[in-house]
Amino acid sequence: MSDTKFVLSEKEIPRQWYNLAADLPKAPLPPLGPDGNPISPDMLAPVFPMNLIEQEVSSDRWIDIPEEILEIYSMWRPSPLYRAKRLEKLLDTPARIYYKNEGVSPAGSHKPNTAVPQAWYNKQFGIERLTTETGAGQWGSALSFACSLVGLECKVFMVRISFDQKPFRRLMMEAWGGKCIPSPSTATQAGRNILEQMPDTPGSLGIAISEAVEAAVTDESGKTRYSLGSVLNHVMLHQTIIGQEAKKQLALAGEKKADVIIGCAGGGSNFAGLAFPFVLDKINGEDITIIPVEPASCPTMTRAPFAYDHGDTAGMTPLLPMHSLGHNFVPPPIHAGGLRYHGMAPLVSHAIELGLLEPLALHQLECYDAAVKFARTEGFISAPETSHAIAATIKEALKAKEEGKEKVILFNWSGHGLMDLKGYEMYFGGQLQDYALPDEEIEKSEEILKTYPKPVIV
Amino acid sequence: MSDTKFVLSEKEIPRQWYNLAADLPKAPLPPLGPDGNPISPDMLAPVFPMNLIEQEVSSDRWIDIPEEILEIYSMWRPSPLYRAKRLEKLLDTPARIYYKNEGVSPAGSHKPNTAVPQAWYNKQFGIERLTTETGAGQWGSALSFACSLVGLECKVFMVRISFDQKPFRRLMMEAWGGKCIPSPSTATQAGRNILEQMPDTPGSLGIAISEAVEAAVTDESGKTRYSLGSVLNHVMLHQTIIGQEAKKQLALAGEKKADVIIGCAGGGSNFAGLAFPFVLDKINGEDITIIPVEPASCPTMTRAPFAYDHGDTAGMTPLLPMHSLGHNFVPPPIHAGGLRYHGMAPLVSHAIELGLLEPLALHQLECYDAAVKFARTEGFISAPETSHAIAATIKEALKAKEEGKEKVILFNWSGHGLMDLKGYEMYFGGQLQDYALPDEEIEKSEEILKTYPKPVIV
Repeated sequence: MSDTKFVLSEKEIPRQWYNLAADLPKAPLPPLGPDGNPISPDMLAPVFPMNLIEQEVSSDRWIDIPEEILEIYSMWRPSPLYRAKRLEKLLDTPARIYYKNEGVSPAGSHKPNTAVPQAWYNKQFGIERLTTETGAGQWGSALSFACSLVGLECKVFMVRISFDQKPFRRLMMEAWGGKCIPSPSTATQAGRNILEQMPDTPGSLGIAISEAVEAAVTDESGKTRYSLGSVLNHVMLHQTIIGQEAKKQLALAGEKKADVIIGCAGGGSNFAGLAFPFVLDKINGEDITIIPVEPASCPTMTRAPFAYDHGDTAGMTPLLPMHSLGHNFVPPPIHAGGLRYHGMAPLVSHAIELGLLEPLALHQLECYDAAVKFARTEGFISAPETSHAIAATIKEALKAKEEGKEKVILFNWSGHGLMDLKGYEMYFGGQLQDYALPDEEIEKSEEILKTYPKPVIV
Repeated sequence: MSDTKFVLSEKEIPRQWYNLAADLPKAPLPPLGPDGNPISPDMLAPVFPMNLIEQEVSSDRWIDIPEEILEIYSMWRPSPLYRAKRLEKLLDTPARIYYKNEGVSPAGSHKPNTAVPQAWYNKQFGIERLTTETGAGQWGSALSFACSLVGLECKVFMVRISFDQKPFRRLMMEAWGGKCIPSPSTATQAGRNILEQMPDTPGSLGIAISEAVEAAVTDESGKTRYSLGSVLNHVMLHQTIIGQEAKKQLALAGEKKADVIIGCAGGGSNFAGLAFPFVLDKINGEDITIIPVEPASCPTMTRAPFAYDHGDTAGMTPLLPMHSLGHNFVPPPIHAGGLRYHGMAPLVSHAIELGLLEPLALHQLECYDAAVKFARTEGFISAPETSHAIAATIKEALKAKEEGKEKVILFNWSGHGLMDLKGYEMYFGGQLQDYALPDEEIEKSEEILKTYPKPVIV
């Protein structure tokens, strides 16, 4: 048997999450409130439980993972690390390609890595119900799964067009007991306002966030909080279990170091989860290239300014220091729904500003082509988001071939595409097109973002 | 961390398949040809490669697994064994419930355990192309996956109504490079005949088998063979890797023995894969209850006669000694498509006749109820087929509670239900009904089967 899969025992699951904020050469900037001043933890208390707020603002390097969370993690963790030998052979590359398989979770992606601790900490804090939003349904299903195991109610506002067109992830939520509501809905003021103005709107992630936040903060019992699946510091934190495991597994595979780390990035969490433990190595002087990959149609990292902006369309969230196309930006309807977000996690954005990352934007046809090559060699069918990481990996592997270098490339296989086969159908049928965002759109975003305070890293 | 997952290292994958035929107290009966006499291996040569025919007729107890197959197996094997502690708690049972998770394969079920060796042995034999049939698409996608990794073409005849209504498994096949054709098709004489008589037929598994066999045997290059995903001896053989792993994992969990073994059974392969290594223990005198579970709407094992019958509707296959509702029987359209087969594997049927198994028939509402309980405690969403094993497990666990016995129950979680959520939607919407096959239907089958030779075990 060849060494193509590297498995850790349950006892080797990392016992702590890694907080990159503790090691950044320059301190991250705080979120700002409506008055333009940094917000205090207390101001977030109606939205999140205090134990998660503490993680959000923590500068501790390591944060212990509670035993009960480790127990649930152990359902699918440690996730396997694979060597992509058949893909290497197809590419005829001297590079050694590894991928971390996060598709093995019951929800099929990396999302449960943070859904479970978020549900658990809320439960600990006496919360009885979580609200959240979801686009294509990946996050809503992960949180429904987590709430079901921990014993919380879960209410998910799902963008209406996805609710209607993609019933399967909604059904996953319902199988786990989650309540899924098409957004905009009449259940919130924000939803009612939108419906009055635009009764036929297909909805948007921004609107759904506004509804979920409102539903949490207006619940008079005080037992409801809101949960977000990406962007925030504590979400990145929870995901670092991926990169920590990968390091141990690379060692098992006999690799002294990784040369290139790759992940797709929408809000930033699966990328950060794999990459942040390696960013520390880079900060400590190791020669390592770290690449977050985004769609060319939503080029937050490669073309949008680093600015203060809201996380949601309605402007209910604090201002976050991040690469943003503007909270009013509506990304084109590419199939990688999880990469259609106007902003980028503040910690990822900050690391870009410090020159620690080398973001890359790719077109979707190249990504689907990569995913099909991957399916026919490595055997796994990838989520459209994940296909971006594969395409970047193939680029790097071919570069290594040109250079004649034996590079070690590691990417995050963030999820399977079994619920996303419609995109493959359109790709095979020649119905997909590439789309690069026109410069005018970027300029429009810059104009709007100028009205907010300018983030300055010192 | 609690002990709820039991993982073997790659090195612990069993190196041999187990052949129950070697240990049965009374010898299995041979298949019969059109003349009513036992068929010779040579007669199967146009359909299967000789290396697989040798396995089909082998009476060796152990058959070595080639290294290259072990390498592909290691993509997802050894599959994890779970202790269902949260389900136990919900049921408040003294039973300890374990399940083998076969949903971790890239195709999402146990099917690749035999798809990979079948593709590999055909390739070894110089074959370039496999044909097969598929109903809902589970088997067709598994074989497309296997052919893609081994380097064979794959042509799948898919029952037309599924082809039209369930595009996702077809898209899986295409992602792996398989060619998927709606059946009946104009590509075969069998298909053309049917289309002439019934241009609007939705198709059936029986017709699709006839088309796939015809496409294999009429290919003049001689480089095409047919592949079947269940029923045959060599398919059962390949699946026994499941039960062998489970035995090692039960030992890891500190269990000296299993008291109850459960698997759902359509053609019989996932059940046999888990159960046959334990059937050997039963033959050797161990006190163990082994339960194959079928739908009450297609009660092959519990109500149909043990008879000689064809495996396909058109009567192209040899006569197999098996429990059968008659090859013309059309099972009602329940959601557990994989359990809608008129026959049952000869080896499973034989073991039933010898009193080694205790088959059980269940209604689908009870099964969906069990699957929802399972999703909300153990976190995995089950295939409709698999839900039958879960429902039987819950029955046994509640029986153990009544009796106050600390039984060890092991079942095969044969696959995830992520491609089958429509059934859950109908269940949640109250649109599903139970259906027990009327006695007249059974009598009709018995009448037809009387025209064939009667199998007599001596």
